[in-house]
Amino acid sequence: MTEPKYVYDFSEGNAGMKSLLGGKGANLAEMMSIGVPVPDGFTVTTAACVAAMKNNGQWPAELWPQIEAGLDALEARTGRKLGAGDKPLLVSVRSGSVFSMPGMMDTILNLGISDEAAAALSKETGNERFAWDSYRRFIQMYAEVVEGAPAHVFEDALAQLKARQGVKLDSDLSVDDLKELVGTFKRLAKESTGKDLPSDPREQLKHSAEAVFASWSNPRAKIYRELNNISDDLGTAVNIQQMVFGNRGDQSATGVAFTRNPATGVNEEYGEFLINAQGEDVVAGIRTPHQLKDLKDELPEAYHELKETMQKLEDHYGDVQDVEFTIEDGHLYMLQTRNGKRTAAAALKIARDLVAEGKISKEEALKRIEPEQLDQLLHPALDPKHTGVALTKGLNASPGAAVGKVSFDADDAALRGRNGEPVVLVRWETTPDDIHGVIAAQGVLTAHGGMTSHAAVVARGMGKPCVAGAGEIRIDSDAKTLTIGDRVFTEKDTITMDGSTGKIYAGALPLVPPQITDDFREVLGWADAIRKLGVRANSDTGPDSEKARELGAEGIGLTRTEHMFMAADRLPVVQQMILAENDSDRAAALTKLLPMQQQDFEEIFTAMDGLPVTIRLIDPPLHEFLPSLVEQSVLVQKLEDTGAPADQLKAARELLGHVKRLSEQNPMLGTRGVRLLMLYPEIAEMQVRAIARAAKAVSAKGVVAKPEIMIPLVAYAVELETLRGIVEKVWAAEAPEIPTMIGTMIELPRAAITADQIANYADFFSFGTNDLTQTTVGISRDDAESSFLHAYQDMGVTPTNPFASIDPDGVAEMVKIGVAKGRSTKPGLKCGVCGEHGGDPASIEIFNKIGLDYVSCSPYRIPIARLAAARAVLGAGATDK
Amino acid sequence: MTEPKYVYDFSEGNAGMKSLLGGKGANLAEMMSIGVPVPDGFTVTTAACVAAMKNNGQWPAELWPQIEAGLDALEARTGRKLGAGDKPLLVSVRSGSVFSMPGMMDTILNLGISDEAAAALSKETGNERFAWDSYRRFIQMYAEVVEGAPAHVFEDALAQLKARQGVKLDSDLSVDDLKELVGTFKRLAKESTGKDLPSDPREQLKHSAEAVFASWSNPRAKIYRELNNISDDLGTAVNIQQMVFGNRGDQSATGVAFTRNPATGVNEEYGEFLINAQGEDVVAGIRTPHQLKDLKDELPEAYHELKETMQKLEDHYGDVQDVEFTIEDGHLYMLQTRNGKRTAAAALKIARDLVAEGKISKEEALKRIEPEQLDQLLHPALDPKHTGVALTKGLNASPGAAVGKVSFDADDAALRGRNGEPVVLVRWETTPDDIHGVIAAQGVLTAHGGMTSHAAVVARGMGKPCVAGAGEIRIDSDAKTLTIGDRVFTEKDTITMDGSTGKIYAGALPLVPPQITDDFREVLGWADAIRKLGVRANSDTGPDSEKARELGAEGIGLTRTEHMFMAADRLPVVQQMILAENDSDRAAALTKLLPMQQQDFEEIFTAMDGLPVTIRLIDPPLHEFLPSLVEQSVLVQKLEDTGAPADQLKAARELLGHVKRLSEQNPMLGTRGVRLLMLYPEIAEMQVRAIARAAKAVSAKGVVAKPEIMIPLVAYAVELETLRGIVEKVWAAEAPEIPTMIGTMIELPRAAITADQIANYADFFSFGTNDLTQTTVGISRDDAESSFLHAYQDMGVTPTNPFASIDPDGVAEMVKIGVAKGRSTKPGLKCGVCGEHGGDPASIEIFNKIGLDYVSCSPYRIPIARLAAARAVLGAGATDK
Repeated sequence: MTEPKYVYDFSEGNAGMKSLLGGKGANLAEMMSIGVPVPDGFTVTTAACVAAMKNNGQWPAELWPQIEAGLDALEARTGRKLGAGDKPLLVSVRSGSVFSMPGMMDTILNLGISDEAAAALSKETGNERFAWDSYRRFIQMYAEVVEGAPAHVFEDALAQLKARQGVKLDSDLSVDDLKELVGTFKRLAKESTGKDLPSDPREQLKHSAEAVFASWSNPRAKIYRELNNISDDLGTAVNIQQMVFGNRGDQSATGVAFTRNPATGVNEEYGEFLINAQGEDVVAGIRTPHQLKDLKDELPEAYHELKETMQKLEDHYGDVQDVEFTIEDGHLYMLQTRNGKRTAAAALKIARDLVAEGKISKEEALKRIEPEQLDQLLHPALDPKHTGVALTKGLNASPGAAVGKVSFDADDAALRGRNGEPVVLVRWETTPDDIHGVIAAQGVLTAHGGMTSHAAVVARGMGKPCVAGAGEIRIDSDAKTLTIGDRVFTEKDTITMDGSTGKIYAGALPLVPPQITDDFREVLGWADAIRKLGVRANSDTGPDSEKARELGAEGIGLTRTEHMFMAADRLPVVQQMILAENDSDRAAALTKLLPMQQQDFEEIFTAMDGLPVTIRLIDPPLHEFLPSLVEQSVLVQKLEDTGAPADQLKAARELLGHVKRLSEQNPMLGTRGVRLLMLYPEIAEMQVRAIARAAKAVSAKGVVAKPEIMIPLVAYAVELETLRGIVEKVWAAEAPEIPTMIGTMIELPRAAITADQIANYADFFSFGTNDLTQTTVGISRDDAESSFLHAYQDMGVTPTNPFASIDPDGVAEMVKIGVAKGRSTKPGLKCGVCGEHGGDPASIEIFNKIGLDYVSCSPYRIPIARLAAARAVLGAGATDK
Repeated sequence: MTEPKYVYDFSEGNAGMKSLLGGKGANLAEMMSIGVPVPDGFTVTTAACVAAMKNNGQWPAELWPQIEAGLDALEARTGRKLGAGDKPLLVSVRSGSVFSMPGMMDTILNLGISDEAAAALSKETGNERFAWDSYRRFIQMYAEVVEGAPAHVFEDALAQLKARQGVKLDSDLSVDDLKELVGTFKRLAKESTGKDLPSDPREQLKHSAEAVFASWSNPRAKIYRELNNISDDLGTAVNIQQMVFGNRGDQSATGVAFTRNPATGVNEEYGEFLINAQGEDVVAGIRTPHQLKDLKDELPEAYHELKETMQKLEDHYGDVQDVEFTIEDGHLYMLQTRNGKRTAAAALKIARDLVAEGKISKEEALKRIEPEQLDQLLHPALDPKHTGVALTKGLNASPGAAVGKVSFDADDAALRGRNGEPVVLVRWETTPDDIHGVIAAQGVLTAHGGMTSHAAVVARGMGKPCVAGAGEIRIDSDAKTLTIGDRVFTEKDTITMDGSTGKIYAGALPLVPPQITDDFREVLGWADAIRKLGVRANSDTGPDSEKARELGAEGIGLTRTEHMFMAADRLPVVQQMILAENDSDRAAALTKLLPMQQQDFEEIFTAMDGLPVTIRLIDPPLHEFLPSLVEQSVLVQKLEDTGAPADQLKAARELLGHVKRLSEQNPMLGTRGVRLLMLYPEIAEMQVRAIARAAKAVSAKGVVAKPEIMIPLVAYAVELETLRGIVEKVWAAEAPEIPTMIGTMIELPRAAITADQIANYADFFSFGTNDLTQTTVGISRDDAESSFLHAYQDMGVTPTNPFASIDPDGVAEMVKIGVAKGRSTKPGLKCGVCGEHGGDPASIEIFNKIGLDYVSCSPYRIPIARLAAARAVLGAGATDK
């Protein structure tokens, strides 16, 4: 057997090897191959990480010898020895996962430095300060990342030293100060970890690579992956690369840049840099960096080389690039290039521009746009007519507006956000440890950091508004106050932030729904031309139906008629119907409900003029319209205990009797849907009558109504046969001149398995994948999402929440069986999906493959579904991140 | 197109045409073909009934002409005209369904009689009394059955006449009295129905046939069919047959007989007759008939001819025959023969005897025994050591003993029986309208009627104890008292009845489990030699396991470990475990539970020495071990309202908090089974440790323990992979020397659909068809059986309760998929079933076909499963009635 190859020199790789070398490693190799200046190095593969993970962190036997061989070769190519000799080699050790996970994993810089190497480096560069500064940074980083020492002990010592020397900035410390700091840091590291740093730099390298592997599994990385649907099984690569130094002096610099503006998509200069700094200083937001254009004045040659290189990279990759660069003594080195994360608006503009520039095809452009990202375009913006006066302005780091109460830390934001309270997370600057707070917040406001700061990058990725670097705000985390000018806000106060302008307002300003841009219309139009799946909306009201149509819905796939029963003016009538002691009382209540339902249907038909409208007859069990058993039992007990009037007690007890009779152990599996309609056909008759009369009424006004009547929860063909008979009879009496279709939900495994029998009575199938997931997997959504399902995702039992993205092996297989069996009876039978999966790109990919006719989703998911459906045809997997 | 043939002369049919001619018609034809004396006639087919049912009762156009043609031919063959001429033809019009439904449908006798015909008949027979007696019977029967007149008006008039004439018996009435009665009855019929009887006898015949068709759908017939799993779609045939008269004088008689004793199976004379009576007089139990042996003295020639004919019929059919006969003026006529219904004990004895007599093969014998019937052998009997003194003795009409409170009418018995109260139905005599009461009662006691009375026949069919014709008891239905000697029993009093001896006792005597007879052992031994399916037991205790083994279990297929938690001394410890605030408290509680569980397992292993024992780890959600949410919420409210001490209120609120946290909307789909074990692996560890230690402990005593550990509710392969790891680790530490298997329940559709993945980690599959039914069909057993499922059976949506008999198209298909997928990964993977379907013959037939290795059922169902499994191999459908 050949020994597995775990180590690749940069010269051996290319951009196509991302899954083995990680994104960073593959792109470093690719850049090297097209002549872009890249510091030399090699990559340890993701396969090595996976092998170690499977073996409780223990490395495969071949791994370390291969790394040493890679290092030997690097030493030979650079003419340097790791941490030794007159010209010591220093390397960086960086993670590199297949999908970008910015800031989530660990990095070690300056590895190879030591007392001897510092001296040699001082001599080689003539810059003793740089050498010892690099040294003290290394000790801290190694101790923290590899040995797990707490950061604050080093920060405290640095602060004490600066106080003692009476200086403010790190760069004001003298060489001797730095030498002292190295000694102090060594002592602190030993105190924290109980041992000296390894003296052998190769041993340091080994431990550093182990630490990077381990950082794949740290909590913040796991949360990030869960949020981004990235599998825990992929592992990370490790890149070991010769250090180049942006902190070697005034002719050195480091920075990050995008080839186009990632917030707007405009083809303009966009980047930041710091003179005499290492890359971490820019990304971490510790010093506020300069705009890229200023580099032209500072280091003009390097600036022009950078601009050319960036253009070369964008042309080569055919997409916007997000690059990291370092200038060492005037020489440019590219440390990373990757496709740039961008806002949805930018993604659409860039796609449209690149196609217009002839650089890529429409198909290629569509493959570049993550459907989920469009969600952010569908978020509200500040109403242009608002009269608020901005208190201050920061960077417009991620567009969209948000209103919420102030929250000063991530835990608090996560807690309040989960409880449904809208909050804005207000921080000096966010760190990867704040991610759960960002997820839960409506938006993020920071006092510090730039457009590429952590808060900005993360917020853009999530489509959340972010205002960064709002320098005029003052935050007191202990007192929990936010001060802007003379205004003081506490946790109880509401602010409005506009990520599109960077402005901050007091109180809650009015928001408006998003406007559909030309870019949006154009790009979605390309998708429409390509996709095979129809896209319909789930909508229960006229206004929602109008919105859906505006967003591109080709019909309504699901109107839930019971939501119409829940309105405050209707619930009492519904309760009369349920509590009716006899048929005539029930008939009287139904007669009252009929015109109300008819009115709803008229509005929907009118909004969807000419397009099909699928209406599902009542689905939930009747007890959902009554007080809960617990509630009513407690009320009766209370009335008894407090000696309430006899008639009041009697009424409460009677209602309790009804509630008890109707309550169910497992309402999900109870007397609902077609079962209810079989027991009370008069409810079906009333609903069908309302639909028919509505269709007739709007037709008289010239509207083309295309009703499709859908029977829920069918398990047995004879149920549908019976209901079909009822529907046909009412329809013939009410609106025989208007064509209608009669179909069924397929949302029980039995329905899928016997779909060949059911198809005999169905004009169409609509797969209700929410309930089908509940019954196929045997999980109750109400319970599971608040109990074991989260643990299951953590444990990797279910890679994603099966209610968010369809379970491919179980539930999707059931859909496949249902479609095949249904069409075996009726070739070409129209089959759609109306569960929430209808708006999920990964699920849409599967539905496209199964050959469904359409998906139906909530109105704001429609553009996402349109794009995802096109990408499914193009073979652009929804999981291609 | 050929006209459908709806009418068959008896000479055209044979026994193989049961589904078209019904059982009675086919057997009349068969008897005629082998030379048995049968009154001539013809049969209207079940197809005619079905055609009429499908057309709202309207007959196909061809039907009446064909019946008239049949009648013309019958008139020609007999030389008589229907109701006309010197020798008028009288006919009977009787139902005849495919499967026997004794007494459930309607019959008209003496059709053709009229004023003229009565006169002619008087002249022809020289028996004016017989002619007018037949006439008054016809008017009453026609008015009741065809016109729906109430019975009591005729009974009242008869009683008044007898009172007026001062006579006691009908037979004491004079010819003139009978003539008067005919006039009275005609008047009463007209008053009740608003019209005269049709004067044309052919019109009477048509209406009579319509009435028999309609009686197929009367409520009692429907209930009978539901109870016996007979399809409503079959319809009944109608037999139109020349009347022969058992009531023509002292040389005439009528009776019923079996070729062997249907209660015991003994090959002995068994039958009853009445001189000068019509058949209905025997069956209806209005006069108490004589034993068949007495016929030898009364009508010796006819007696011997009857005996020879019965032997001929038993030999011809190769099975015990239940015959009806009439002797008219010394001539024997057979009116019906059919396979005799018998007790289970008789069925076994008869099967064994017929095989021993060389008349049929063992296979044929097994096909004759309904598996369900064995259930009655497994009912308790009176403890032989009881010291009760019998109060009276009736006929031992159906064996087995019963204890219950006295119930005087069927509605009351049905109500109290359904509410779980054991009752004995005590009636003068039962009628088909009492059937729901018989179903609900523990046993039936009648004051009147013989071994072939309605009560006796029905009770034997159901395997319920019956004492019939207990002439010394007095029943006052109005006062609701039962008097035996000087003892008076009310509805509140308990009696004991022994259907095996006919004895009645006061109070509740001790019962003992049934004894296994030699016949039982022998016949079940034949089944064991033929069947392919293994038969295991569901058992949670040592004693149940012993019983199961005695009844033939080849292992335990399901031990539910949570039942062990419910015992009063354990529940508090289980609650400690659930409410533990931390891991160490939970560990402490588990440590207390371990020896308790170990003890249970030791008993079961010992009982099943050498046989496999499948143990399922804990399955239900934890809140099942706590008070319910309603209960605890009400308690807290009460404590609040009544100002309970603060500590008591605090404790109640804390417990409520726990209950709320653990409560689920749909516990069936909740945090249970493997999900619980994934969250609390320490519970699995404790249970496996208890199993391992038990196996080790009994091994030390020489018992061979064969544990099989089963993980419930697996949906994802990785769940089983994880649990397998836990089990293997504990096992290796505790009892590595004892072999064990690790398998899983397949009880969710996802598990069946992904069984190929799951099989990688399973040594065996056990299909939990209860839960698989709940999830596949989407019905909650707890709710459905008390709500829509009953309506669904009435409406014919589900022909049988899917929890009693497996749904063939849905759930069984899922089992089939699971087996096929599992074995695609592991050829020959052991697959069993442990839902309640494991003891249901119809389901066993399906499981045999699917190729399962075994079924597992409750101990008392084991013999049924053994027999059903053999019959499945023999192709004797479970539904072959």
